[in-house]
Amino acid sequence: VVDRAVTRVVTPGTVVEDELLAPGNNYVACLARADAADTAGGAHDTTAEPTADEAAATETDGGTSAKASGNGDVEPSGTTHAVAFVDVSTGEFRATSADSQGTIQDELDRLAPAEVVLAPEISDGNFDIDGMVTPHDAAAFEPETARERVTSYAPNPEAVFECDAEIRAAGALLDYAEHTQVAEGELGHVTRLTRYDPRERMGLDATALRSLDVFENHAGGDDHTLVAVLDETTCALGRRELDHWLRRPLLDQAVIEARLDAVEELTHESLVREEARELLREVYDIERLVARVSRGRANARDLRALKTTLDVVPRLREVLSDAESDLLVECREGLDGLDDVRGLIGRAIQAEPPAEITEGGVIAQGFDDDLDDLRSTAREGREWVASLEDRERERTGIDSLSVGHTEVHGYYIEVTNANLDAVPEEYTRRQTLKNSERFYTPELERREDEILGAAERADSREHQLFTDIRDEIAAETDRVQHLADHLATLDVLCTLADIAVENDYARPEFGNDGIAIRDGRHPVVERHAEFVPNDADLCEEPFAIVTGPNMAGKSTYMRQIALIAILAQMGSFVPAQEVRLPIVDRVFTRVGASDDIAGGQSTFMREMSELTDILHGATADSLVLLDEVGRGTSTTDGEAIARAVTEFIHDEIGATTLFATHYHDLTEIAAELDGVQTLQFAADRTDGEVTFLHTVTEGAASASYGVDVARMAGVPDPVVERSRDLVSGTAGRDRPSGDDKRD
Amino acid sequence: VVDRAVTRVVTPGTVVEDELLAPGNNYVACLARADAADTAGGAHDTTAEPTADEAAATETDGGTSAKASGNGDVEPSGTTHAVAFVDVSTGEFRATSADSQGTIQDELDRLAPAEVVLAPEISDGNFDIDGMVTPHDAAAFEPETARERVTSYAPNPEAVFECDAEIRAAGALLDYAEHTQVAEGELGHVTRLTRYDPRERMGLDATALRSLDVFENHAGGDDHTLVAVLDETTCALGRRELDHWLRRPLLDQAVIEARLDAVEELTHESLVREEARELLREVYDIERLVARVSRGRANARDLRALKTTLDVVPRLREVLSDAESDLLVECREGLDGLDDVRGLIGRAIQAEPPAEITEGGVIAQGFDDDLDDLRSTAREGREWVASLEDRERERTGIDSLSVGHTEVHGYYIEVTNANLDAVPEEYTRRQTLKNSERFYTPELERREDEILGAAERADSREHQLFTDIRDEIAAETDRVQHLADHLATLDVLCTLADIAVENDYARPEFGNDGIAIRDGRHPVVERHAEFVPNDADLCEEPFAIVTGPNMAGKSTYMRQIALIAILAQMGSFVPAQEVRLPIVDRVFTRVGASDDIAGGQSTFMREMSELTDILHGATADSLVLLDEVGRGTSTTDGEAIARAVTEFIHDEIGATTLFATHYHDLTEIAAELDGVQTLQFAADRTDGEVTFLHTVTEGAASASYGVDVARMAGVPDPVVERSRDLVSGTAGRDRPSGDDKRD
Repeated sequence: VVDRAVTRVVTPGTVVEDELLAPGNNYVACLARADAADTAGGAHDTTAEPTADEAAATETDGGTSAKASGNGDVEPSGTTHAVAFVDVSTGEFRATSADSQGTIQDELDRLAPAEVVLAPEISDGNFDIDGMVTPHDAAAFEPETARERVTSYAPNPEAVFECDAEIRAAGALLDYAEHTQVAEGELGHVTRLTRYDPRERMGLDATALRSLDVFENHAGGDDHTLVAVLDETTCALGRRELDHWLRRPLLDQAVIEARLDAVEELTHESLVREEARELLREVYDIERLVARVSRGRANARDLRALKTTLDVVPRLREVLSDAESDLLVECREGLDGLDDVRGLIGRAIQAEPPAEITEGGVIAQGFDDDLDDLRSTAREGREWVASLEDRERERTGIDSLSVGHTEVHGYYIEVTNANLDAVPEEYTRRQTLKNSERFYTPELERREDEILGAAERADSREHQLFTDIRDEIAAETDRVQHLADHLATLDVLCTLADIAVENDYARPEFGNDGIAIRDGRHPVVERHAEFVPNDADLCEEPFAIVTGPNMAGKSTYMRQIALIAILAQMGSFVPAQEVRLPIVDRVFTRVGASDDIAGGQSTFMREMSELTDILHGATADSLVLLDEVGRGTSTTDGEAIARAVTEFIHDEIGATTLFATHYHDLTEIAAELDGVQTLQFAADRTDGEVTFLHTVTEGAASASYGVDVARMAGVPDPVVERSRDLVSGTAGRDRPSGDDKRD
Repeated sequence: VVDRAVTRVVTPGTVVEDELLAPGNNYVACLARADAADTAGGAHDTTAEPTADEAAATETDGGTSAKASGNGDVEPSGTTHAVAFVDVSTGEFRATSADSQGTIQDELDRLAPAEVVLAPEISDGNFDIDGMVTPHDAAAFEPETARERVTSYAPNPEAVFECDAEIRAAGALLDYAEHTQVAEGELGHVTRLTRYDPRERMGLDATALRSLDVFENHAGGDDHTLVAVLDETTCALGRRELDHWLRRPLLDQAVIEARLDAVEELTHESLVREEARELLREVYDIERLVARVSRGRANARDLRALKTTLDVVPRLREVLSDAESDLLVECREGLDGLDDVRGLIGRAIQAEPPAEITEGGVIAQGFDDDLDDLRSTAREGREWVASLEDRERERTGIDSLSVGHTEVHGYYIEVTNANLDAVPEEYTRRQTLKNSERFYTPELERREDEILGAAERADSREHQLFTDIRDEIAAETDRVQHLADHLATLDVLCTLADIAVENDYARPEFGNDGIAIRDGRHPVVERHAEFVPNDADLCEEPFAIVTGPNMAGKSTYMRQIALIAILAQMGSFVPAQEVRLPIVDRVFTRVGASDDIAGGQSTFMREMSELTDILHGATADSLVLLDEVGRGTSTTDGEAIARAVTEFIHDEIGATTLFATHYHDLTEIAAELDGVQTLQFAADRTDGEVTFLHTVTEGAASASYGVDVARMAGVPDPVVERSRDLVSGTAGRDRPSGDDKRD
């Protein structure tokens, strides 16, 4: 009947069932490392024992062995690591490699795979992996085996990938993905293996993504995040594309400007935007849909959904007919409506088919003669049985005679005990009930068998026809994927334009004079509260020490500058009146704090580790946010470290930096160093009530209002009063109530 | 054929598919609030407008309107909230209510439901909900409707629940759960609705669970957590039971001692323990299994798995025959082997049946005559077809004649073109191939229909028999659940005993003299690193100010004391040589820090909010951990708050408290206040290398070693050197290199 062999191994990274998947991407990743013989040239001849040497290099902590290269870039140019990613549900496949393990870690953080497969030479302690770590057959990582596997997807692996480690990661990953899709062998929808260079994208590590609430808020949810603000996409394709753009802000100004041109055109053409968005709402997730088609998992409703989507395409081209910007024109020209596929589905598949192809009623009447014949045979048989009751009543004269059916015994003729005398001779007894007997006749039994046989054969025929049609569409996977790409891009462009208009964003301009923002806002916070816009001028003095009381807005101010840079480089308008900024190579953050007691790191140790990453990784083109660095230790040590870090970034790195601090001492440094400014957030105390003004001005704040915040948080009055007395010095060190209260 | 109507609505909280579920519980919760007319008696007559008054009471922040009741307990005795939980996969159902919204929030935190259903009067902004919030029909919350619904599960709701709000939450939740299981109507396996009182359990809110790494580490994973250390359970039943115990440490010393008695007995009886664990390894998750049976979702393999589990029971009773402690005796006596069910499954179900009941071959031969007859008819038909080839070859003289079958056309006789002359007259052409023709005969067609008919009827008959058997077992759901309870308890007891032996834990003793620990260890950290045990003596001086450098172990020390209290009160031995402690009513923590910028709270505001909860909620029986309270603001304000808080807890609350701080100033207070001690963690600097000794001694530490930690974290040498100079004062404020380097 239906084939029920084991067809898949379900793992978090290779789920393909729509109901189990969020609309976003779901990746499985694979890590591999170049072995000694394979590492980048140059070192081969110089040392006698390259293997031991290479191994040692990967163990050092980076600070001591590498040469001081002037600009903080002291990571060891160690062994090459490679990472490959696949989203089995969409067919997306990418790989890259880098000499720095940190770069690979950043890619893992950026893509957040649900599952990671490790080559045998990789220990999972070397990477910070959030998803499940899955073991896989070491043989799949053998260079020749892996290369072979890749060849089934990309005939010439060397033309796609840059090194053996990439090919090993890619090959083993494909092998693993095939393994999880047991019954299907090759993954027909993984048609485009691509290699990318992470250095072409703005650096955004896990720390920065987390502390800026880009994809997740502090509690791990997705409300109150940047992606939640931006995600007004109308279809799942656009949702994933938006995610791509946001995870990978660009460094190439020409590409950024092309996106901005398209967004700007759409901000002006509100009618085009509205109509396009209206049409895009009818678009199904055809990327995953065609993946199911290709894997032989699509049902009849999927095919109708594909047709509905294809129906939209000509109308979309029409809407875009006057588009002028390069990217919009490219989208319009790329919208292939696949008329052949659309026609086939229209002719072959019922308009509202059942979900299960085994239920029958999937193939439209008139599409196949054999099927139509089998259907009539079954129907005629049923009609014969349906009319049997009347015929037999007339023939036998038994008015209460009835014809019925049970699952176990099949069709029967039922006669009540009172009429048993009138039963004809050819009736054979089948079952005895309390008040009646059930019979069958040879003809009834023959008809029943005939009905069963025809129905069974019709089901089989439908199944065969359906899979043939599906295979025919599967052959067009590539065209559907290209269409999906263009629909996705269009959705994101319309969305960014819509958000820009709705929220009064401005187009950012790029230049090399430093960051200058007029009336900038925090894109997330402004959605949930009254927001006071603030300027930033980091051109002449690119290092800003930010002071002011708790709750006044220091952290929000710093983060909004980083978010504006990210938005600008992904090709979006930004929440401000006017923005000029340089292309930022990387955003670094050292804000907030989290413990890892069981993992053996104290809060302060983590703080210092993150600081270390910044001091080693930042360049003059980076944007650095430091929030209260040094506060995890004693005041003396903390102030010393804060000051030394400020000097080091100023003297040695030259990164654009915002440093929020309560150390008033640190503000003195602004006077001493060129290029360092001090900013303050103001507060106003009237009648004992504190109001935070949320406006930034020049100069250093003098009071911290910590006790006021404690009061606002609900700390009991006696504690607040006593604290206030201690601060003002009116209480001395003796408590007002003494010690007698308790003893 | 197979029935494929929509049978379930899949939601995160009501998943029942095993492959989608972790072994732990998966709850859906439901919240309701008593309306004004329904609130607890007493206030009814005193105010003219109770509704407005009640509403106002729930809005106040607790600090101002409530009377000062002496002991910090100033929560408003506001409107009653109720919460009900169900795990649809196991049938567990509980409900409770409380006058304090915070208590209900704590229960939500404790049980971490995947999904929450809200009554119309509840706004989701009032609770901090991690899972999905699901809307549900307001009508289900109508008091009469809800009561009706509950009655199907518990004939007299008032005997189970304590107020209308509980009944409304319970009834609406059952309605929702039924709604998600569309086809099944009532949930036959939800047989035990229970009401509990959260005040019977140790208080553990989300903050404490998180900062102590009880169930999740800082990154949200479950490695390096307390549950990971304890979870050596051998079956899924035990895994969930362990979770229950750990989420709900007890307050009743008698019940705790009963658990400890059983654990202690098992630590002595290693053979009993090993054998029991060996047998428990063969136990399936019969709680979920019987839930599937009851819902008509169990397949034949499930029934065999139930039998395998039942086979274990008599052997387990045998192993426990000499058990003496009350709880072990209770477990043994509760182990009902359900011999009737075991016998039925043994007779009726094939030993290794297929997973799908529609595949046939599920019911054992000899169990049902009708089925056996139908099977022979089909078999004889197939045998007739199988022998047809030989007979027809002989009859026609065509040696190459063959008999075959296709899905679409059914059976055929194939004759190559060369032999078409010899084809008998009664052969009818069915299909023409390139080199041959396919035929059928009336007899072959009749036989084919007969085979199809008999096979179809046999499948139906098997299906009927199987569902009858399943229904018969479903009627015993209650007994299976009781068996599951006892197996689960036994597994946890054996596991705790095993862990105690393997890790050298000691049995805790309870008394009212305060906490005294000899050679205590952190149960998680000791698994991953060399660990130096430390004493704690909080009897005479229950307030300890803990000082010492970063990384020396302050946080670990404080947390290990809280974890020991939790372990002791769940009935486990504890990681120490000797422990005496009181029954702790609640553990409070204010450690670490996390930002909620987008939510509008600064780090310091969160710190103060958590502090507020502690100062309002703690009693003399609580255990309070404070880590660096006050560090999120300026030094002056921070020190004042820290001192005022210390005085308040000491004078007004009297809770056992550990307060880690870098404020050396605060250590002076120990001299001033009775019952306050100062502890320090030592470090040793030799030749510039710092060693943290991880041992606690009396007295206040004088140095913080913050710069040393910075160096260990890899902060670049120039920054470390400069910091050191600044701390020691040798550098003054002028930098050694001046400003000329960059300009």
